[in-house]
Amino acid sequence: MLTGQQYKDSLNDGRKTYFEGERIDDLPAHPILGQTAEFTAKAYDKYYNPEPNAVSPLLGVPKSADDLHALIPMLHDAGMMAHVTSTSIQTLKTAAGRMTDVKPEYIDRITSYIDHAQRSDVRITQCITDAKGDRSRHPAKQDDLDAYVRVVDRQRDGVVIRGAKLHITGASFGHDLLTIPTKAMRAGEEEWSIGCIVPVNAEGVKIINTSYAPRHEDTRAFPVSSRYHYPEGFVIFDDVFVPNERIFLDGETAYAAVFAHSLGLWERLGGLSAFADEADQLVGFAQLVAEANGTAGISHVQEKISEMIIHATLIRAALEAAIAHCQAGPEGAVFPSELYVNAGKFHAAANYNLMVRHLHDISGGAVLTAPVPADFENPEVGDLARKYMATSRDIDGEYRASLMHAIRDLTADAYGGWKLVTNLQAGGGLYAQRIVTRRHYDLDGAKRKALHVAGMSEGDVH
Amino acid sequence: MLTGQQYKDSLNDGRKTYFEGERIDDLPAHPILGQTAEFTAKAYDKYYNPEPNAVSPLLGVPKSADDLHALIPMLHDAGMMAHVTSTSIQTLKTAAGRMTDVKPEYIDRITSYIDHAQRSDVRITQCITDAKGDRSRHPAKQDDLDAYVRVVDRQRDGVVIRGAKLHITGASFGHDLLTIPTKAMRAGEEEWSIGCIVPVNAEGVKIINTSYAPRHEDTRAFPVSSRYHYPEGFVIFDDVFVPNERIFLDGETAYAAVFAHSLGLWERLGGLSAFADEADQLVGFAQLVAEANGTAGISHVQEKISEMIIHATLIRAALEAAIAHCQAGPEGAVFPSELYVNAGKFHAAANYNLMVRHLHDISGGAVLTAPVPADFENPEVGDLARKYMATSRDIDGEYRASLMHAIRDLTADAYGGWKLVTNLQAGGGLYAQRIVTRRHYDLDGAKRKALHVAGMSEGDVH
Amino acid sequence: MLTGQQYKDSLNDGRKTYFEGERIDDLPAHPILGQTAEFTAKAYDKYYNPEPNAVSPLLGVPKSADDLHALIPMLHDAGMMAHVTSTSIQTLKTAAGRMTDVKPEYIDRITSYIDHAQRSDVRITQCITDAKGDRSRHPAKQDDLDAYVRVVDRQRDGVVIRGAKLHITGASFGHDLLTIPTKAMRAGEEEWSIGCIVPVNAEGVKIINTSYAPRHEDTRAFPVSSRYHYPEGFVIFDDVFVPNERIFLDGETAYAAVFAHSLGLWERLGGLSAFADEADQLVGFAQLVAEANGTAGISHVQEKISEMIIHATLIRAALEAAIAHCQAGPEGAVFPSELYVNAGKFHAAANYNLMVRHLHDISGGAVLTAPVPADFENPEVGDLARKYMATSRDIDGEYRASLMHAIRDLTADAYGGWKLVTNLQAGGGLYAQRIVTRRHYDLDGAKRKALHVAGMSEGDVH
Amino acid sequence: MLTGQQYKDSLNDGRKTYFEGERIDDLPAHPILGQTAEFTAKAYDKYYNPEPNAVSPLLGVPKSADDLHALIPMLHDAGMMAHVTSTSIQTLKTAAGRMTDVKPEYIDRITSYIDHAQRSDVRITQCITDAKGDRSRHPAKQDDLDAYVRVVDRQRDGVVIRGAKLHITGASFGHDLLTIPTKAMRAGEEEWSIGCIVPVNAEGVKIINTSYAPRHEDTRAFPVSSRYHYPEGFVIFDDVFVPNERIFLDGETAYAAVFAHSLGLWERLGGLSAFADEADQLVGFAQLVAEANGTAGISHVQEKISEMIIHATLIRAALEAAIAHCQAGPEGAVFPSELYVNAGKFHAAANYNLMVRHLHDISGGAVLTAPVPADFENPEVGDLARKYMATSRDIDGEYRASLMHAIRDLTADAYGGWKLVTNLQAGGGLYAQRIVTRRHYDLDGAKRKALHVAGMSEGDVH
Repeated sequence: MLTGQQYKDSLNDGRKTYFEGERIDDLPAHPILGQTAEFTAKAYDKYYNPEPNAVSPLLGVPKSADDLHALIPMLHDAGMMAHVTSTSIQTLKTAAGRMTDVKPEYIDRITSYIDHAQRSDVRITQCITDAKGDRSRHPAKQDDLDAYVRVVDRQRDGVVIRGAKLHITGASFGHDLLTIPTKAMRAGEEEWSIGCIVPVNAEGVKIINTSYAPRHEDTRAFPVSSRYHYPEGFVIFDDVFVPNERIFLDGETAYAAVFAHSLGLWERLGGLSAFADEADQLVGFAQLVAEANGTAGISHVQEKISEMIIHATLIRAALEAAIAHCQAGPEGAVFPSELYVNAGKFHAAANYNLMVRHLHDISGGAVLTAPVPADFENPEVGDLARKYMATSRDIDGEYRASLMHAIRDLTADAYGGWKLVTNLQAGGGLYAQRIVTRRHYDLDGAKRKALHVAGMSEGDVH
Repeated sequence: MLTGQQYKDSLNDGRKTYFEGERIDDLPAHPILGQTAEFTAKAYDKYYNPEPNAVSPLLGVPKSADDLHALIPMLHDAGMMAHVTSTSIQTLKTAAGRMTDVKPEYIDRITSYIDHAQRSDVRITQCITDAKGDRSRHPAKQDDLDAYVRVVDRQRDGVVIRGAKLHITGASFGHDLLTIPTKAMRAGEEEWSIGCIVPVNAEGVKIINTSYAPRHEDTRAFPVSSRYHYPEGFVIFDDVFVPNERIFLDGETAYAAVFAHSLGLWERLGGLSAFADEADQLVGFAQLVAEANGTAGISHVQEKISEMIIHATLIRAALEAAIAHCQAGPEGAVFPSELYVNAGKFHAAANYNLMVRHLHDISGGAVLTAPVPADFENPEVGDLARKYMATSRDIDGEYRASLMHAIRDLTADAYGGWKLVTNLQAGGGLYAQRIVTRRHYDLDGAKRKALHVAGMSEGDVH
Repeated sequence: MLTGQQYKDSLNDGRKTYFEGERIDDLPAHPILGQTAEFTAKAYDKYYNPEPNAVSPLLGVPKSADDLHALIPMLHDAGMMAHVTSTSIQTLKTAAGRMTDVKPEYIDRITSYIDHAQRSDVRITQCITDAKGDRSRHPAKQDDLDAYVRVVDRQRDGVVIRGAKLHITGASFGHDLLTIPTKAMRAGEEEWSIGCIVPVNAEGVKIINTSYAPRHEDTRAFPVSSRYHYPEGFVIFDDVFVPNERIFLDGETAYAAVFAHSLGLWERLGGLSAFADEADQLVGFAQLVAEANGTAGISHVQEKISEMIIHATLIRAALEAAIAHCQAGPEGAVFPSELYVNAGKFHAAANYNLMVRHLHDISGGAVLTAPVPADFENPEVGDLARKYMATSRDIDGEYRASLMHAIRDLTADAYGGWKLVTNLQAGGGLYAQRIVTRRHYDLDGAKRKALHVAGMSEGDVH
Repeated sequence: MLTGQQYKDSLNDGRKTYFEGERIDDLPAHPILGQTAEFTAKAYDKYYNPEPNAVSPLLGVPKSADDLHALIPMLHDAGMMAHVTSTSIQTLKTAAGRMTDVKPEYIDRITSYIDHAQRSDVRITQCITDAKGDRSRHPAKQDDLDAYVRVVDRQRDGVVIRGAKLHITGASFGHDLLTIPTKAMRAGEEEWSIGCIVPVNAEGVKIINTSYAPRHEDTRAFPVSSRYHYPEGFVIFDDVFVPNERIFLDGETAYAAVFAHSLGLWERLGGLSAFADEADQLVGFAQLVAEANGTAGISHVQEKISEMIIHATLIRAALEAAIAHCQAGPEGAVFPSELYVNAGKFHAAANYNLMVRHLHDISGGAVLTAPVPADFENPEVGDLARKYMATSRDIDGEYRASLMHAIRDLTADAYGGWKLVTNLQAGGGLYAQRIVTRRHYDLDGAKRKALHVAGMSEGDVH
């Protein structure tokens, strides 16, 4: 296993990563992106075990509902890089279980890679979404054939790929890129049916980063986003060689979607469990700010908070049902219920904006206008700010301002905007989540129930 | 145990029950209400066991999550009278577990009554909602002190009660009325703090029935409501004597709400599980009618059905989570999770009307205008009706009309209207369900989560 | 102009109309459908003018926004048959204005027919929705070519049509059927591009009626639907001859949709204005029942009513905007704004079910369980019913029961179910209304506004 | 009238204004806040008229519906400082019309001040929201009596006030502060019933600013917020003397709410009209980005855009109805309809977050991850960024990135967060807007309509 310092050192491996127009020479030392390296290093240290063959619990494979229950909060605690790495490993495990009738070497390579990843304690990001070009056309019909990542050359010991993968959270902060087709492929789309592992520092890989990190000199008014922010990577494969042993799919169009579907399940489980916690947080903020404002006893405020509570509880119910109904694959690795994960994730994402509206409605304009810590320190206005932000002898003005800053940072500033979009887009837009739920629902059973109520049976349908 | 015939015979016991202005002399023989007696008798026969000391499984007490899982569908299958009886028994059992520090004879009487009920195979309805008078005033402040059922006289061997209990589904079709306070009582409201069992045929009990049963001569176009309909009872206690051994609460205001809260939990569990099945039914009808119309492949139709599927799945998730998180009382009887039951029930009720809108939007106007069976039999227009109701060689006109009738009967006619209202009102209006959910949610835990995200802790709140 | 009696006499003209399996010999004398004839006759009497050349104001053509403002409430007051007749006339007038470059005789025939209709004071229903067969196929690709009304024979002085038109409110109670294509037609679909007038008593016309009219012996508990109910007609054209002078379109596929679009506008205006009034009614019932229950001062009840008020106000705003922005056709007849009519109608229909939920939530279970007038007359329980339905000295039990019956009849019984479906389906399902709104919205203007905000202009789009 | 330069010069008048802990010495020269002075100066220049007695059209008083129609877009064009100034003037005019029976000198002073303001071409901000302390207590019951602005001293020629006014957009960029009670006052709250004008540079006024302005070195990826941003002011009155001639209310508690209600109307009109334009912008962005992504033809994308169109149209309808139904005050100044303004504003605010969700759902993750202009200029990755952001030969990568930046800046970054909150809070939270709508709706008329439908009349209510 790696220590935090070893992790940071490992990032200066020649990788080509860019931010706001400039190549970054020393990632851990970068004033903004270096912070992300630091958060990630801390999680390494927290879970570090000096035993020679220790494997990080963050990289383990759950074998039961109880394992799943234990794993989920640990990943949220350890931060985004641990989360995406675990998701990558579960995805590979799940996909392997669904590819038992393709080439056996694919499963061997996956197994071997997971073993390597666990031993090396690496961080892996999932590269799925392609540039996609015109969404109404298939990969082979695009004006630019590289709109989806594809094999452009074949060599004896590997292949050369070209294309780009977008919205890859933390891509610059991992070691490997799990690169898989973004959707099902059809006959004739063999060259786009490529699944493989690419090291971040491989020749030809270039990553453009974007970040919601606060740019203010004094970030004390950003208690959430100043403590963790993970840049999004725009990952370009500018003719990158991939050796055979890291190729898990190459041309088998019928299996192109296996990785995406496997990833989708785990990514949405991650999303659902994050939503469950965040829904509780929004309830907590709503109650705290109502108490601080002196409005916690007002009927319409209580009604809004009750609605938020019901929302949080339904998401939690979906998560509990998904875990309770988990299923085991061929080697005993368990997968949560697709049905409950997808329905819960959809509901959470679809209603998040409304919950934020409730929170803002309860909080009041001070979310935007609370003085910042430096104002409180100013001798001319600090005490006045404190006096007028206070609401009673029991509620201090600076505490109340801190609440407002947290709410703004979480829901009404750069990070909040990032959440609005990623809530919807992570794991596919709302439409995609509907389709997956539908696919896993027992529609025939529902038809039978309806016919029964109508006093008919399947034989009457004609 | 009783056979269906024995049950029907038992109803002619002198009870005073009224319908549309007239007293009913022979309930099983009544052209409309007699049908309800018949449905109920059939369920008796179905679960009949001739063994001398047999107890109906419908009247059993669940001791585990598995028991709960098994009990719920059995009750839905056996019909409303079985359901309300089971709810009464679980309510008594749950309430007994919460009254261990009041008079011990109350618990003895409850135990003894449950034993009696199981041995006699009776049907019991829950009488909770009072007439209530002016909702903005307490019981003792009403213009009419009988607005809430109360003790008006005390005798050595029992008490005399007066008042009315409204919206009592099936009251005329059971044997006993479980009569309990509708809400918490305060000091000074001792006379309204009365919980007891009253036989339906007790002197002074009068029940006015209302029914959504179809009144058409030919009810074939009402496949749902012609097969089961349960009148609502407006139950009047016109000075009714209750013997001591059937009194479970008398004047202990602090415990007045125990029965209502216990009943609420089981009533909402019944509601939630019914919603879960009905949501599947609505999905089934939507899919069947889309297929019959030739619109099942149209994007916006699929989107609506997917939304219905997600709705059905979330309700099911809440039910699964409620059962998985059930808790055991002092004697081992289990209770589902208040939190998940209430949140699920609220969500189901709040969104039912929207699901019906989707179904109607998909079905088209034929829900209202499909010819009835007699039209299909008319030699002048029957074949024409069949021809124009058909949509292709594969979809017969009469089958499609049957689908439309079922949808209309279930959602757009008298029974459908009854459902719209009972969905909201059974177990209390939406507002009540919000409050109960809030009461069982870990609000302090949510506040801690919020403070943690904000980089604060409970000590910072001041 | 006709008197009510003359109107009733005119219905016994040999028309073939059926109800629940039987042909009706004498429509005005029919126990259920005769009531509809009676309501309609009363409106004739109310607007009767004995002047020889008088034209009913119900059949006039508006020439200004003020005319439109005056016409709308008059039509709602006069009842459904006046409404559909006016809609037919405005539709013909609007369509004529859009067909100036087809055969001039079509416009002459339309003008001549309107003149005839006004002089004869007839009632006209619009026959638009075809049987449609499989919705995923075009008319010429159906298994049954008659799935859309079509010309099956041509004669020198007219054509013979075959097919069926469904969901035709009041078809059996008018004199003429305005029969028009239900949608746009394509080349090759000439035979289905037929628009014409067919007398209800023409040879080959057969109408199957369905009705939500209450079937109870005593309909006093149905204050709404016992006072007006209009059967839906399933209108079959079993090879019906149409003379040339009543044909307004025959084979001009490019113009097939003109009638449907013209009708759609007026039908949705009728729908929108009805929704505006009904939304006020729902608010009124909610407030009355809250006052009767003693809950009008409770915060969550007020919030729900406020939401209903906002809903009612938005619909009214759309109606006001539609009239204020009306436009004049070639001969000065005005048409309301398509944009505002469609957006308002969509919003009203989409949210109606939620408003009903609010009303039911506020009303309580007595909507379903209030004793009926006959119960109040029963000497054994009448006074008790009155006592327990009362809520204070100020609110009488029988008055409160009347409110509950009205709410049930309007929203939670057969008529309420009919409304749920027709709200959505009249003028096309929700999807159709979205499309029409979109078509009339200035999408290019919106794009320019967006580009301006983004600091770009149309030239930057590339 | 003032030129832009004269305006900027006027800001260095000794005012005490603070930002992030520091006092600003030279406001127009400040790197961030100076931008706001610059935007405001430009609007001065645009409407400048060198005629000696010219009055800016931005400061005029509308006398007809046409005037209102003309004024609204002009204010939006001229920017926030013009908008708040016009709102202040209309508020004073409207309030004067409602105070005709208090002291006549108040009306004289208002008239005189408006005349002064017009002649001097000043900018005025409305200071309404107090610090408020504990919201559950009245002003005189607060722990800190200064929680609401109050008179703390009286002198012969004026009064001294103390307190704070929060969320005052642009407070540091105007010349005068229109300071009015935030709500109705009761007997005993005379000292809090103070309405007056205070110059920004008056002794004792201190303003703490907060701003959503982008802090990035290169703000090209912020096309919206880099072009206009208006700081919020936390305005402290630290014992400020106000001369009698600038006092419009002093102790007349019964009239304390007149200013707030008058302001509310105009502020919400401003909000409603802004929402109408912004709804069109959101539609425009949704359509542009769908076209750029190649998804404009996909059914579910079109449905979402249609829903956005209907939303935009309903808001526009409310605005049109509010103007069409405007009313004139005593001196001919017109006021829009309270009913339509409030209902429209509520609906717009309540649904804004959902519209943003639709836009994000359609846009995709590139809203967050599109490379910035500097990346496109980098020789190593610029062309690759362009290649992979392009979607076809017709859609250039850099154009598409610009769209994404505009969407992010408008809806998913600091400015977008500011909008989420101000949408709800400007003019009061959602609850306040419901109450005002309810107050102006004809509830008695609605009750009469309901009774009529139920076959009853007002005499039956008992």
